[in-house]
Amino acid sequence: MTTVLKLGGSVITDKDRAETVDGEALDRAADAVARATDDLVVVHGGGSFGHHNAEAHGVSTTAGTHEIGGLTEIHSAMKALNGLVLRRLHDRDVPAVPVHPLSAASRDPGGELTLPAEQVATLRAEGFVPVLHGDVIAHRGEGVTVLSGDEIVTSLARDLDADRVGLCSTVPGVLDTDGGVIPRIERFDDAADALGGAESTDVSGGMAGKVRTLLALPTPASVFGLDDLSAFLDGEAPGTTVG
Amino acid sequence: MTTVLKLGGSVITDKDRAETVDGEALDRAADAVARATDDLVVVHGGGSFGHHNAEAHGVSTTAGTHEIGGLTEIHSAMKALNGLVLRRLHDRDVPAVPVHPLSAASRDPGGELTLPAEQVATLRAEGFVPVLHGDVIAHRGEGVTVLSGDEIVTSLARDLDADRVGLCSTVPGVLDTDGGVIPRIERFDDAADALGGAESTDVSGGMAGKVRTLLALPTPASVFGLDDLSAFLDGEAPGTTVG
Repeated sequence: MTTVLKLGGSVITDKDRAETVDGEALDRAADAVARATDDLVVVHGGGSFGHHNAEAHGVSTTAGTHEIGGLTEIHSAMKALNGLVLRRLHDRDVPAVPVHPLSAASRDPGGELTLPAEQVATLRAEGFVPVLHGDVIAHRGEGVTVLSGDEIVTSLARDLDADRVGLCSTVPGVLDTDGGVIPRIERFDDAADALGGAESTDVSGGMAGKVRTLLALPTPASVFGLDDLSAFLDGEAPGTTVG
Repeated sequence: MTTVLKLGGSVITDKDRAETVDGEALDRAADAVARATDDLVVVHGGGSFGHHNAEAHGVSTTAGTHEIGGLTEIHSAMKALNGLVLRRLHDRDVPAVPVHPLSAASRDPGGELTLPAEQVATLRAEGFVPVLHGDVIAHRGEGVTVLSGDEIVTSLARDLDADRVGLCSTVPGVLDTDGGVIPRIERFDDAADALGGAESTDVSGGMAGKVRTLLALPTPASVFGLDDLSAFLDGEAPGTTVG
């Protein structure tokens, strides 16, 4: 049973302080991962390590930079966060292995992503837990652009033929206009009102974009909060099931 | 003009002291790289950062480990060396970008290497200088095994369709039995005596194995010492030309 688990950057970092983890949240997430029995591939976002660095250098998923200083700053910050995540997992005897997207992935001039998955599949088959993260990656014509954690999740879920996909978020699921969790979204229209209408798009990893992307996956995905991470890893479908 | 340049681990590190660079040698190599006009892909070996760690954990290119402690120790040491190489290059305004093989490569049960090159090609096309290094990589059935710098060089030279390949070594070239540099080796037999006979093989990156591998490349390769690195990067063919 292969599960791709995303730990949202905003869940594990302190949004209000640059390059600071939310130690308590990260401990809880690491505890849950250490108890999991599925074969896990973990992906984490950037939170306060990635976003302000990317913004400072004007880099997004579509607008790039050729400046080595900007590349190095963003990439180093994300590696630092990855190292902190790995340390907590190693402390709990999770055989976590860092996989840095800048070393593996690229985009063509149209922005289409190539993220080879054979190294991730082999690490997993050998009993390791690959831990990827949002990063900057080479983009033909743009220098480097941002690769979001959500893009990694959908790419790997497909290529690894994942049985389960979970997104651990700062909210307990996709919320309706009254703030309640929508249990199931099978088509975008099921939640169009709550997501800002059928025309709503976002490039910043907001919920409308997440739902659209998850609906395109071959397997249903769960969106849930940190309180439900253990339930998800125990095989339940907490929060919102998308797909 | 794409050139794949290997900086031997023994050239840039102090062999007698664990995890210590040869600062003077590394400065000279970085100076030469900073003056180069070709599009460069740099690969460095492990030297005193990689070999004793790999030996301590019983890991080679064919014998692996499933121990996360061993994996982490070897990989972290190689990343530390890579960081030191990158810093010297950044100090000289070389837009060097780290590419960690553990994040990208794997071996099948027969040991055959998959090292995707599209990310390296895209970084290079965008004006960056990818810097790879010997590492541990996932190996199906073995956990992780060592990937040598020489294997990276031959894989990338092929996949990037490199125009030139250079191996900067601790010796000024392939030496004959009198200690003189053999200017050209077109077939293994040209140097069989000096290399220990036609049956000679080694898995440790010794000269016989290097020559065999280089002869299989579609483009001739140069083997030379640090004194000749600038000449090589200026377009000359110092030391021994193999192929």
